[in-house]
Amino acid sequence: MIYGYDPRTGETVGAALPETDHDGVDKIVSAAAAAGAVWRATPAAERAVALEAVADALAAHVDELWRIADQETALGEVRLRGEVARTAGQFRLFAQVIRDGGYLDAIVDHADPSATPPRPDVRRMKHALQGVVAVFSASNFPFAFSVAGGDTASALAAGCPVVVKAHPGHPNTSERVAQIVRGALPQPELLGLVQGMQAGVDLVQHPTVVAAGFTGSVAGGKAIQALIDQREVPIPFFGELGSVNPVVVLPSAPKAEVAAGFAGSLTLGVGQFCTNPGLMFVPDDDELRKALTAAVEGTTGGPMLAERIRDGYLGGLDRLGELTVLAEGKPGEGSWAVTPKVFTTDLESFERGLPRIAEECFGPASIVVTYQDVADLPAVLERLEGSLTATVHSADPREAEQVADVLGRKAGRLIWNGWPTGVAVCWAMHHGGPWPASTAPAHTSVGATAIDRWLAPRAYQDWPEELLPDALKDANPLGVPQRVDGTLTLS
Amino acid sequence: MIYGYDPRTGETVGAALPETDHDGVDKIVSAAAAAGAVWRATPAAERAVALEAVADALAAHVDELWRIADQETALGEVRLRGEVARTAGQFRLFAQVIRDGGYLDAIVDHADPSATPPRPDVRRMKHALQGVVAVFSASNFPFAFSVAGGDTASALAAGCPVVVKAHPGHPNTSERVAQIVRGALPQPELLGLVQGMQAGVDLVQHPTVVAAGFTGSVAGGKAIQALIDQREVPIPFFGELGSVNPVVVLPSAPKAEVAAGFAGSLTLGVGQFCTNPGLMFVPDDDELRKALTAAVEGTTGGPMLAERIRDGYLGGLDRLGELTVLAEGKPGEGSWAVTPKVFTTDLESFERGLPRIAEECFGPASIVVTYQDVADLPAVLERLEGSLTATVHSADPREAEQVADVLGRKAGRLIWNGWPTGVAVCWAMHHGGPWPASTAPAHTSVGATAIDRWLAPRAYQDWPEELLPDALKDANPLGVPQRVDGTLTLS
Repeated sequence: MIYGYDPRTGETVGAALPETDHDGVDKIVSAAAAAGAVWRATPAAERAVALEAVADALAAHVDELWRIADQETALGEVRLRGEVARTAGQFRLFAQVIRDGGYLDAIVDHADPSATPPRPDVRRMKHALQGVVAVFSASNFPFAFSVAGGDTASALAAGCPVVVKAHPGHPNTSERVAQIVRGALPQPELLGLVQGMQAGVDLVQHPTVVAAGFTGSVAGGKAIQALIDQREVPIPFFGELGSVNPVVVLPSAPKAEVAAGFAGSLTLGVGQFCTNPGLMFVPDDDELRKALTAAVEGTTGGPMLAERIRDGYLGGLDRLGELTVLAEGKPGEGSWAVTPKVFTTDLESFERGLPRIAEECFGPASIVVTYQDVADLPAVLERLEGSLTATVHSADPREAEQVADVLGRKAGRLIWNGWPTGVAVCWAMHHGGPWPASTAPAHTSVGATAIDRWLAPRAYQDWPEELLPDALKDANPLGVPQRVDGTLTLS
Repeated sequence: MIYGYDPRTGETVGAALPETDHDGVDKIVSAAAAAGAVWRATPAAERAVALEAVADALAAHVDELWRIADQETALGEVRLRGEVARTAGQFRLFAQVIRDGGYLDAIVDHADPSATPPRPDVRRMKHALQGVVAVFSASNFPFAFSVAGGDTASALAAGCPVVVKAHPGHPNTSERVAQIVRGALPQPELLGLVQGMQAGVDLVQHPTVVAAGFTGSVAGGKAIQALIDQREVPIPFFGELGSVNPVVVLPSAPKAEVAAGFAGSLTLGVGQFCTNPGLMFVPDDDELRKALTAAVEGTTGGPMLAERIRDGYLGGLDRLGELTVLAEGKPGEGSWAVTPKVFTTDLESFERGLPRIAEECFGPASIVVTYQDVADLPAVLERLEGSLTATVHSADPREAEQVADVLGRKAGRLIWNGWPTGVAVCWAMHHGGPWPASTAPAHTSVGATAIDRWLAPRAYQDWPEELLPDALKDANPLGVPQRVDGTLTLS
């Protein structure tokens, strides 16, 4: 049986839930596939209405949902209410995306009998993948990256049924969210939920599964990739893994603001964000050092999501133990509580410690690396692994030119005078980056283009009008963007 | 040393070429990477001019190129001249693609301080992958899917340097094409060429290689995937592998035209196309059977590209030996010549022989499967593996409704009353499909969208105007399509 645990007490909470066995996974995946055959043939306008119904249902249950999740995660009312709103908002964004139709990437090339060789009429658009999308949910976002998270919302929007492997950190939250989403969908089987480690193995190796999304650790991502490598038919794996999210503070940056912003971003949600600023390069400056020390000392820790995650954090602190401690926050309260901790070293020592010194330590820990000259930074930044984000603090864009190029090659999102925690759900967001930030750097798990992971194109050559999808007809009855004979056109 | 062979005589032709050793691969990849850093920063308008210079250079050398390739492939003057033109045309198409700028997928979301939480300014576009693209060239297209083929053209267009592993079937053609392309590029190192099996291993495992393209057999594709799986940092693998390309002839189709078209498509280029029609379902009809028999008997074989390919074809014929022979063509002339051969069986026997009976037999062989009732087809078609194409012959679109849906799920391109050989190079072409047609069904190796394989997005949050790429500036100085605050706009 699977139990939820209260991070504040370490005691079990909620119902004991059975692990999904091999036959159970097969039944859930098969039911999802059957429902998916109807769903992908449903017009986008109707799918959009269903996505909005899911958003409404989640929002309507926020009072109940935040309490269940708070028991299992200790993330608190404000954060969890906000996360439910974000989760509902993701469904609303994808309703807009599929109404717009640009995601279909419709292209029409009329026949050209005068070409050598004569060219047939060729039309092409993207369709939902033909099967079930497996989603592995994250510990640190019980709503926004979990059962009803961005992977699920984008896959349903694309036209794919989804089976989620619940995270063991919030099994009861997962069950309740699944019930609510199912109640709002035209066929409840479009969203399956499985519980237990072996169920995850069975899920990703099921022949009807055509793609998998994952948010979690590098080790977890590698384990799932190894399972996929054993499949008879390979499938794409969209994993969002580890990230240290380097921040570069340039000499012109305002010191007090940087210190306060850093401490806030570092300790938000007990540092349990993929976008936590785990590494910051700062000028070797006493005033800044003092401001950072004071800001970090003003923070308070809290309980982490799970005992295993707490142990991982403590192990990470041990690994960094040879460095000087710059500052510590106050200890948090609760069974699995930890204390924010910031280490410091100089650029030369940091470089000698690469690559191990720059490995992610999941939680409210960071390394502040002091440098003498901005010109020394690019060579060291070049040696960092990929991250979801890279941030620059500066009062002068020209000052940033020296580091902008290398940071751009190391991260999926560049941030100016801000902090990496907080990932806006919008059309332009890219939440991905070079390995190990992502297993698929061409894709994002947040924002409108996340839908692209669950689509594949098909071309139609001289195909009769009666059998063409509406999005490819000359009359363009759906009014989707079409590229016609090489020219993008808006209806 | 590596030698080219004349398929007509089995004798070596051209120069003996050294295999590229481990250090040689490293030097070539490193030089390509260094050149690539300049190339990806080159404005698209200038890259487009360079691509057109490559096209001009290839076209200008056609008299020389077809002769070298004919010696090594025996594909003949008409086909090889056409293929050089196609290859040059691909470079011209990608010049158009990057001038248009739609491939950048530029998205601009302005800040929304009134949102909860307040939304920053976020902009996103695609950039060239940061490293070298490895290309494994094909046996059967010494130009269009080889050193200067679609993979190379699309990767250079994206802004990536390329290192090609030459196919052993045409080593001298490969060297000469590489010389010509290098001479037309602003930096010759942007196109590297390596020779030899071990060089291919070293190439795909080189840390600076960020993606690989491949056209070849299922076994070859699996071998490269296994090498990639051993890498420290995973990279995407775009392999176009095997395909049987089912053709469904419905009762209303004109029999004489179908028979003539089938025989022509089957034996074009001695059947050495990924899109060869290896499987055709026809009504059980004596008139059609007679027409097919006559048409196939009117064909003539020829020498295959390599001794190993010839042996593979003969092995495939052995595997199909339990079936009834419907018709054979005339034997071709030359050392590695083979004879076209068409087998036949009924739908029930075919279904019993699945999946092995439907494996690709590379060359001018096909199975004609007779059916009694169109309604029996979907269940059998459902059991086929993925293909690059699926074709329907019919005089009535309504008659095709029963098979269109299942064929759409089995192939990357649907063809109406045509033949799968001949892949138009255009904006809408999709040359891919479900496994084993492709290792990456979301991508194509032919057509404008082939460029997408070598790109990854990056987001810019509150990034200063001075540091933004031109394609993301509000003034849109390049005039690229932008999606602004959710609405696609054309400049």
